[in-house]
Amino acid sequence: MPTGKLHVIPLGGLGEFGMNCMAVRWGDDIIVIDAGLMFPEAELLGVDIVVPDISYLTENRQHVRGIVLTHGHEDHIGALPWILSELNVPVWGTEFSLAYVEDKLDEHGLLDKAELNEITPGERFKIGPFTIHPIQVTHSLVNCVALAVHTPLGVIIHTGDFKVDPTPTDNRLFDLHSFAEYGKEGVLALFQDSTNVERKGYTPSERAVRRKFDEVFAHTKRRLFISCFSSSIHRLKLAVEMAFEHGRKIAFIGRSMNSSSEIAEDLGYIEIPEGLLIHPGDMKNYPPERVCVMISGTQGEPMSALSRAAVDNHKHAKIEKGDTVMLSSRIIPGNEKAIYRMIDHLFRREAHVIYDDGSSPPVHVSGHGSQEELRLIINLVKPKYFVPVHGEYRQLKLHAELAGAMHGSVGKVMLIESGDILEFDELGARKAGRINVGRVCIDSGSRTDVVEDLIIKDRRHLSEDGIVLPIIAINKLTGRVESSPEIVTRGFSPGEDGFMGEARQIVMQTLNMSSSEEKADYGVIKEKIRTDLKRYISKQTQKRPLIMPVILEI
Amino acid sequence: MPTGKLHVIPLGGLGEFGMNCMAVRWGDDIIVIDAGLMFPEAELLGVDIVVPDISYLTENRQHVRGIVLTHGHEDHIGALPWILSELNVPVWGTEFSLAYVEDKLDEHGLLDKAELNEITPGERFKIGPFTIHPIQVTHSLVNCVALAVHTPLGVIIHTGDFKVDPTPTDNRLFDLHSFAEYGKEGVLALFQDSTNVERKGYTPSERAVRRKFDEVFAHTKRRLFISCFSSSIHRLKLAVEMAFEHGRKIAFIGRSMNSSSEIAEDLGYIEIPEGLLIHPGDMKNYPPERVCVMISGTQGEPMSALSRAAVDNHKHAKIEKGDTVMLSSRIIPGNEKAIYRMIDHLFRREAHVIYDDGSSPPVHVSGHGSQEELRLIINLVKPKYFVPVHGEYRQLKLHAELAGAMHGSVGKVMLIESGDILEFDELGARKAGRINVGRVCIDSGSRTDVVEDLIIKDRRHLSEDGIVLPIIAINKLTGRVESSPEIVTRGFSPGEDGFMGEARQIVMQTLNMSSSEEKADYGVIKEKIRTDLKRYISKQTQKRPLIMPVILEI
Repeated sequence: MPTGKLHVIPLGGLGEFGMNCMAVRWGDDIIVIDAGLMFPEAELLGVDIVVPDISYLTENRQHVRGIVLTHGHEDHIGALPWILSELNVPVWGTEFSLAYVEDKLDEHGLLDKAELNEITPGERFKIGPFTIHPIQVTHSLVNCVALAVHTPLGVIIHTGDFKVDPTPTDNRLFDLHSFAEYGKEGVLALFQDSTNVERKGYTPSERAVRRKFDEVFAHTKRRLFISCFSSSIHRLKLAVEMAFEHGRKIAFIGRSMNSSSEIAEDLGYIEIPEGLLIHPGDMKNYPPERVCVMISGTQGEPMSALSRAAVDNHKHAKIEKGDTVMLSSRIIPGNEKAIYRMIDHLFRREAHVIYDDGSSPPVHVSGHGSQEELRLIINLVKPKYFVPVHGEYRQLKLHAELAGAMHGSVGKVMLIESGDILEFDELGARKAGRINVGRVCIDSGSRTDVVEDLIIKDRRHLSEDGIVLPIIAINKLTGRVESSPEIVTRGFSPGEDGFMGEARQIVMQTLNMSSSEEKADYGVIKEKIRTDLKRYISKQTQKRPLIMPVILEI
Repeated sequence: MPTGKLHVIPLGGLGEFGMNCMAVRWGDDIIVIDAGLMFPEAELLGVDIVVPDISYLTENRQHVRGIVLTHGHEDHIGALPWILSELNVPVWGTEFSLAYVEDKLDEHGLLDKAELNEITPGERFKIGPFTIHPIQVTHSLVNCVALAVHTPLGVIIHTGDFKVDPTPTDNRLFDLHSFAEYGKEGVLALFQDSTNVERKGYTPSERAVRRKFDEVFAHTKRRLFISCFSSSIHRLKLAVEMAFEHGRKIAFIGRSMNSSSEIAEDLGYIEIPEGLLIHPGDMKNYPPERVCVMISGTQGEPMSALSRAAVDNHKHAKIEKGDTVMLSSRIIPGNEKAIYRMIDHLFRREAHVIYDDGSSPPVHVSGHGSQEELRLIINLVKPKYFVPVHGEYRQLKLHAELAGAMHGSVGKVMLIESGDILEFDELGARKAGRINVGRVCIDSGSRTDVVEDLIIKDRRHLSEDGIVLPIIAINKLTGRVESSPEIVTRGFSPGEDGFMGEARQIVMQTLNMSSSEEKADYGVIKEKIRTDLKRYISKQTQKRPLIMPVILEI
């Protein structure tokens, strides 16, 4: 066995949901598995996306050989524009994943300079000292792979996102055989998706929704609107097939829905029979019972096509009494209110709305494996070390417990989080320190608009109680106060009528009681004004607006 | 039958979740059923509670005879301080509901002036032309009633919140007989709780959680922390009983948990055996396997006892490795992130955490009746008119459909929303116009701190992109600009370094290119500055901060 140390360092995704990114290092060579984003929590005001802090990579920029993608979901590819603009390294991914990546890089003007390498499940390729074997897995997206990375110390397997779907709609089976073979030969470490570790049993096959679709297509008398995640290629395919069988034309509405279905058709994942597809503008020319619309907006996003249709504010998508709207998706935590608000509007339009109410057959199934599938893969792979990935802390912990109980199949469980350095050598594995990791907040989707913590903190403060600005003019020659203080506020409710006058008095008093030295030191006088005004406001209104004194030099 | 019109007017709760409040009017007499609040959605920045607009009541203040409460939950009593401070009318409620009300009014300094009248299930009382019969129902709270209101036109029944629990923990049974009797005699209208209309079957009895508690108490080796809604008196009772059986002392931690358990004990809903209760500060004197702690904070509220304990920031509640924390509650939509964040922290403390993962026996059951219970009450009551209450629009609609299909038991279904006037007379029932209703946003829990829409809109704007204030000093005598423009920002990230200088230039240019008439009209010059700066900022940064020009007269 060669001497040397293998480092595996998660830069994101372990201890948080999303922004999956993991560095694998042998000596002077680093590869990165996935480059995902995270959608911000509500308290990150004005932040559009969150990406991992990649200072470990930029500090080692001469060693980073490239990024290998497991599949094309945002939490695995969404940070690519940000990372590539800091560090333009080659990217490897399957045909379908790269199609999404191309779209994304194009949007950010990064496509021309990017080096994208297509990989094929089952075909090995080399990056530096690593030989990488992409293994076909099943998931809610198509063309997804796990990665077996041959390192000088042994093989490590990263599952990516997966479920073990025995009957995938595209008949591209989960490659159990490769997992089995690695298990026989010996695997150093297995890094496995923890997303659904809280669910008992097996996740149903993607085909389970077919029965629901069957039922809905059979019973729908008027227009049928179906909304699903635009990356749910299996669902798009199913909808196209069912529309054809039931004599309905199909229209795609929404930007992501259109681009996703185009990619899927180009790459042969969906076949749309001649004449089936119609332009949304032509829907009105067909009787309602002959139309099926695939429309984006399952999460009630305010500007999405479905949200706008729900309030009758979409050019083409007109939802009328007796139409059916099916939401073939899960409710992402945090979006409940927006989704139910949209559903309420659909009810008001007297549409028949079908959404996940726990009934069977299901209108949506998960793309992530449940406990029995996690156990199956562990039994096949029999790793020396088992490392849960992709999950909040409790999920990693539960996954560690699940694997820890499988004595015959797992040598040792390593519970690590983003930033931990997991070190392997000939003696074993251990946590060997930490690197700097964290979240970078990006505004307005542009790849470079980082929002600093202080600004988010300010926004949170502003959003609670608003802002109060006492403004005074000071003559820079004489040091004299040249105006009576002005007070302006936004987002602040002063309550009583006399508030403004009194607040002005307070500022005036503070000025009068300050020496001319104090008045000459703007820092000091501002702080005095802030303190006095804060005390007054807090006493009068029990509120704590942001108070920002301004001195105008004249 | 007397001639006259009976009006039933929901002021809140129909078409929205919470803030249940309904006016019932015969001639010059109005009674109000319930006075609830609603917890604000995240986008209502800096708003603590939302209460119904009661202008209908204040405009008819001489006719309002009082408020009758069905039970003590916040969405039924929480607006009382707000309403009574506008309109101090008598309040009727059961012993337990009034105990909660007293606490609340006391906190707002309104208790002395309030007229509170205790009612008892089964004992009729009169208000003006109405005879009211409180009927005992079962729910997650204790001492809850439905109201049969005898009006000159017939009896209307308002269910309040209920489930039909065949085995309530306090053995106070759902009074099915009274519903049956009214059904035999004839009921004009039934107003029924729609909360769980989306659930099939029956809601399990509150006693179903006993099996889970049994299991947990039997298997817990160290300290046991149980969190539930502080108003879940059934759970408090259960926990007290189990702690006694299993030889654990019990401590209550958290303000609401303490006041709720005290009320329940005072009124005999919980019996705490001598010596069982310990002060939280004394916990450390008992071995871990002898302690059970009831702690508030099921929803991950940042300042709650459990959230603070989860990050080891609570004086008494120290959670250690191997301790068990059971969350006996549901996840209220919108709170997922906060709750899971708290659970993650508990996992990090190596606590064993039990939360609702859908497994059986359940760790929590709902307090609202499912479809079969709704059908049962309809079959018993056989109302001429059926009106769904308490629900978002889709729930009212689904409830209307459920009842509409029960041809033998329901005359006609009336689907109304908050603000609709439902009019009954000898000829029948109809919607007869609308009144003004709406939401009043209250800040900081004080009963009078209304937050105007404009202020919330400002806060939302501020929270997205921050604020930019160009400030100039103008000599009010000469009209001359006396300083170079100052620009201050908060919560705004300008991106490029040269931004501030250029922005100042823009303002300067605008000033230079304006006539002295324009400069004399502050409204005009402010608007010109705003427009020019907005264009510049939007071009440079793709952002839309709130821009607020300030002119200081000197």
